Amino acid sequence: MRFPKGFSGGSTKAGLKASGKPDVGLVVSDRPCVAAGMFTKNRFAGANIPFCRKVLRRGSVRAVVVHAGQANACTGREGQEVARQTAVAVSGSVGCGHNEVIVGSTGVIGVLPDLARIQNGIRSIAEKGLAPEGLLAAGKAMMTTDTVQKTVAVRFLLGGKMVSMVGIAKGSGMIHPNMATMLSYVFTDAKISKTALRIAFRDAVEGSFNCLTVDGDTSTSDMAVVLANGAAGNREVKPQGKDFATFAGKLAHVCTTLSRMVARDGEGATRLVTVRVRRAATFEDARRAAKAVANSNLVKTAVFGRDPNWGRIACAIGYCGARFAPEKVTIRLGRALIFAKEKPAAYDRKALSKYLADSEEVLVDISLGSGRSEAVVSTCDLSYDYVRINAEYTT
Amino acid sequence: MRFPKGFSGGSTKAGLKASGKPDVGLVVSDRPCVAAGMFTKNRFAGANIPFCRKVLRRGSVRAVVVHAGQANACTGREGQEVARQTAVAVSGSVGCGHNEVIVGSTGVIGVLPDLARIQNGIRSIAEKGLAPEGLLAAGKAMMTTDTVQKTVAVRFLLGGKMVSMVGIAKGSGMIHPNMATMLSYVFTDAKISKTALRIAFRDAVEGSFNCLTVDGDTSTSDMAVVLANGAAGNREVKPQGKDFATFAGKLAHVCTTLSRMVARDGEGATRLVTVRVRRAATFEDARRAAKAVANSNLVKTAVFGRDPNWGRIACAIGYCGARFAPEKVTIRLGRALIFAKEKPAAYDRKALSKYLADSEEVLVDISLGSGRSEAVVSTCDLSYDYVRINAEYTT
Repeated sequence: MRFPKGFSGGSTKAGLKASGKPDVGLVVSDRPCVAAGMFTKNRFAGANIPFCRKVLRRGSVRAVVVHAGQANACTGREGQEVARQTAVAVSGSVGCGHNEVIVGSTGVIGVLPDLARIQNGIRSIAEKGLAPEGLLAAGKAMMTTDTVQKTVAVRFLLGGKMVSMVGIAKGSGMIHPNMATMLSYVFTDAKISKTALRIAFRDAVEGSFNCLTVDGDTSTSDMAVVLANGAAGNREVKPQGKDFATFAGKLAHVCTTLSRMVARDGEGATRLVTVRVRRAATFEDARRAAKAVANSNLVKTAVFGRDPNWGRIACAIGYCGARFAPEKVTIRLGRALIFAKEKPAAYDRKALSKYLADSEEVLVDISLGSGRSEAVVSTCDLSYDYVRINAEYTT
Repeated sequence: MRFPKGFSGGSTKAGLKASGKPDVGLVVSDRPCVAAGMFTKNRFAGANIPFCRKVLRRGSVRAVVVHAGQANACTGREGQEVARQTAVAVSGSVGCGHNEVIVGSTGVIGVLPDLARIQNGIRSIAEKGLAPEGLLAAGKAMMTTDTVQKTVAVRFLLGGKMVSMVGIAKGSGMIHPNMATMLSYVFTDAKISKTALRIAFRDAVEGSFNCLTVDGDTSTSDMAVVLANGAAGNREVKPQGKDFATFAGKLAHVCTTLSRMVARDGEGATRLVTVRVRRAATFEDARRAAKAVANSNLVKTAVFGRDPNWGRIACAIGYCGARFAPEKVTIRLGRALIFAKEKPAAYDRKALSKYLADSEEVLVDISLGSGRSEAVVSTCDLSYDYVRINAEYTT
């Protein structure tokens, strides 16, 4: 993997996770970054959310620090102080302003993280020394119930220069658009204007992390942030033109790939489920229908049971609230047409069961027959393990 | 149990359920009934829904027939014909108009029920003869994954006459307000005007069946219908006054009790969860917040795990979309205050765990501190058995 120039990172075991695994991660850029972010819309947003919004409004960013074990949400004024002091600790260790630090956290809600442990952790990471491959270590440190680490790396030519982009993300429960209990950071050495980065990132997030659901619960702590430090030396990307299209395409690819990884590794998931809704009146209608299907416990348990009980898909479309004419709706599982004209199509039930049994990724393809818009939502099935993991999470 | 005068019923095994259990039920009134109904808002509403709406618009009702095994939803024109012919069969067997028959069905979506079996079933019930206690048999015939039968009976004085009311309902998955996969019928011998019955029933359903959720999936086949045949001989209840208040109160009690029974027997449920939201700006805000908590898989798995992970409750309130000021929100589990002023209250964690372990009914009590409205939503926890039942339902 080729890491973006100028970024380095590291992680440590600070004693925040009961498991004793690495739980503090740090990524630093050797020069100021242009940055953009999208945050949870939960009204009980964690203490880091307002802090990070302020950082992004203010200007450039130098570092991202994450700690896992406690979400620092529903922790009141003390939680806000932990967020601020965490940034101060990074500032002291790496020599940047504390208002140039993005702070992310994930874990149990309503428990104040131990600030002293975070501070010690940051100091220890800085003392060990940071390295480019430390981006991966930072990604690992923020995992909670994730079973696999989510990393995407791409390289591409931008205005004649080779540019690198690396994305790291964590899931894997309390995952729902706007956003997920998801922390996702993308680092690139591209040179890009702040406006261009904001536009590209907003579009990328709408079609990726905001089209992602594991269990329909919008977390208090979600954030997705992109940092671009310009070390690649390309001519600055502006909000339009060929370079912008190239950059935006790659950024969308990185975010979509990360969100599919998060869905596939949803708590207890045994497979990735992709719900594609086509021919909707608007993108919002398409996403609403796709989310209703993707969030239906009945659809998700049917997929887990390899059971082609497609009536549950029709049912979810029926209550989703999107505009459509029922007689124009078609539903396909994989390539097989199973529902059209408000009744079952003539499909091969055995072949369908085989499709469900054999496919690592299950595709639900819906046409609303009411327009030209489309949305693709990623989710996973609902298994015994989801229940086990979440019945046992804090105790 | 005292049954309402003039009603009789029965059931039979018609071969619609794979289990071979009774699957067709019939209730007949010896005289025309005033009736009111509320139906699913699912856009793929089953074939019975438009049929029953027409019956209720038209005038009086004489009979209710239910069949279980297939939902007769997403079955196209053929499904509509099955609904009509089912009513015709009842009409022929009991001597009423086919447009005086309410038809209900529940089971797998997208599979056409076998009309000949339904017709044979109805004939066989009529030949065996109907009896007052047959109301219970009819209630049993419509059970699917229900583990207990849901019946409520009340007697009360109305204008000096003793009146009886019996409600029967079935759950227990694909249950969500507007409405649930729920069939519920209330039979009473009270004499009441159609307008009064409609008003009383609409209010009763809003506060009961439409405050009920098992898994957030609004079914295609839900209906709740009340029949009043006037056999008790009381003076006719009009839309206002003391008699109306008495009747409406009893009807609300019957509907609320049935909906709590449906929640308690939700698929895989190990306990009833009651989410009460107080001091909301409007009833809609209160219900929205209560439903968000009641529908959260994370809250439901935590209750299953007897885990006081109340941060998940705050999280669900945070994304529910109701109006409130976060700093005014308080959350109680049972009587213990656990969250106030955006941070944890000083509660006894051990006592809380004991409360969760010992309580047959778990009460989540939330104040939004923003008004005077209140809603109470009934739901259940989310267990391994929910997944098992729904992963194996059609295969």
